[in-house]
Amino acid sequence: MSLLRQIGTWRHVFKLDPNRPLSDAALECICTSKTDAIIIGGTDGITYENTHLLWQRVKSYEIPCVQEISTFSAILLGCEGYLIPSVLNTEDAYWLKGAHYEAIRTYGDLIPWEKVAGQGYVILNPEAKVSRLTHCNTNLSTEDLIAYARLSDQLFHLPIFYIEYSGTYGQIEMVRAARRGLRKARLFYGGGIRTQTQAEEMATWADTIVIGNLVYEDLKQALASVAWVKETAQRK
Amino acid sequence: MSLLRQIGTWRHVFKLDPNRPLSDAALECICTSKTDAIIIGGTDGITYENTHLLWQRVKSYEIPCVQEISTFSAILLGCEGYLIPSVLNTEDAYWLKGAHYEAIRTYGDLIPWEKVAGQGYVILNPEAKVSRLTHCNTNLSTEDLIAYARLSDQLFHLPIFYIEYSGTYGQIEMVRAARRGLRKARLFYGGGIRTQTQAEEMATWADTIVIGNLVYEDLKQALASVAWVKETAQRK
Repeated sequence: MSLLRQIGTWRHVFKLDPNRPLSDAALECICTSKTDAIIIGGTDGITYENTHLLWQRVKSYEIPCVQEISTFSAILLGCEGYLIPSVLNTEDAYWLKGAHYEAIRTYGDLIPWEKVAGQGYVILNPEAKVSRLTHCNTNLSTEDLIAYARLSDQLFHLPIFYIEYSGTYGQIEMVRAARRGLRKARLFYGGGIRTQTQAEEMATWADTIVIGNLVYEDLKQALASVAWVKETAQRK
Repeated sequence: MSLLRQIGTWRHVFKLDPNRPLSDAALECICTSKTDAIIIGGTDGITYENTHLLWQRVKSYEIPCVQEISTFSAILLGCEGYLIPSVLNTEDAYWLKGAHYEAIRTYGDLIPWEKVAGQGYVILNPEAKVSRLTHCNTNLSTEDLIAYARLSDQLFHLPIFYIEYSGTYGQIEMVRAARRGLRKARLFYGGGIRTQTQAEEMATWADTIVIGNLVYEDLKQALASVAWVKETAQRK
């Protein structure tokens, strides 16, 4: 199955950070939790070594595993899929296309494009490391977000539109606005989900829920989130 | 026929600048020249009034006519197609997505996306007004251009990749490099074609040749360029 078709089936994914410790027991629980996929990615302290190590550990399970590329030097050759974020609400073209251009310039013919999916990213938590790093304007209205969703989906044809609240729980109005702006792209939501109510609320509007921090903060709740999300999806 | 299918048949197009005078007799020659389409667009002095006036004049002929949008306030409502340039070799995100975002934010639901085609633009003439305006890095190698072609085509899925030499005749190696980088997008070339040899050289590698300045400098040669390009295309 192509990467895009795979992604089209994802309702719940875990995002694991190569720079944060995770025991073998915890990783086994995550990888056998009936989540749809593991995304390997993070913002700082990402190296080829810690990324490769985490990938090797995940690969011993049957779960699909893709890399979200943030650091050029940490790209995993031979990974089954690559998610490439382009930050839309930045004025700095480097985070929209510059880093991407440099990677394409370097890897050239080696890039397996059928395994690559672009993500139109909108970062909405002003306190997050990633929004400071990428100089984002996080002060957006629902109308602004609809416009970014259309830009991403209709002009750039990015297959994923990703709302990133990065550790804080977001505003449901923003997720609903993004939904209204999209025709083709899959809507990912990530950020601050800790309870069943939150998971259900976001899963009602987003196609795919990304659980990251909760893995490291409360593994039991993180594991429970799989059912919260999937049961909401079935009711839709 | 959808806009994208139409564009897929274009071998030769004229780009007419609303800010430059063109007599009725010249316009009639252009519109009945057997070119494939007229693009209305320019860099400076573009107003709604001069754009609308030129459009009304072209519309009395049967030739397909689309607008290349450069100035937000000059958008022609009801035009049969819109080309939206995103400048790839700039560090200023405004020319890549910022102006686009503002237009989408304003026009919202009114945008007929099926009539819109994004263009990944690479501007290669450092002296051109447009490259100064958009802060382009025009000092690119063939490897750089291949990377931009891949970025445009494979990551952003833009249906057109546009090499713009803007008034000066370009390097054929650059056009060949772009060709190598593209899998899906149509390759447009524009800039400085004045002779049959030049038209044939560029038409051998580019899918679509854009003739702009020559219309205003030497109408007879401009009209002759239709056959130069189309005969080259048939030999390919």
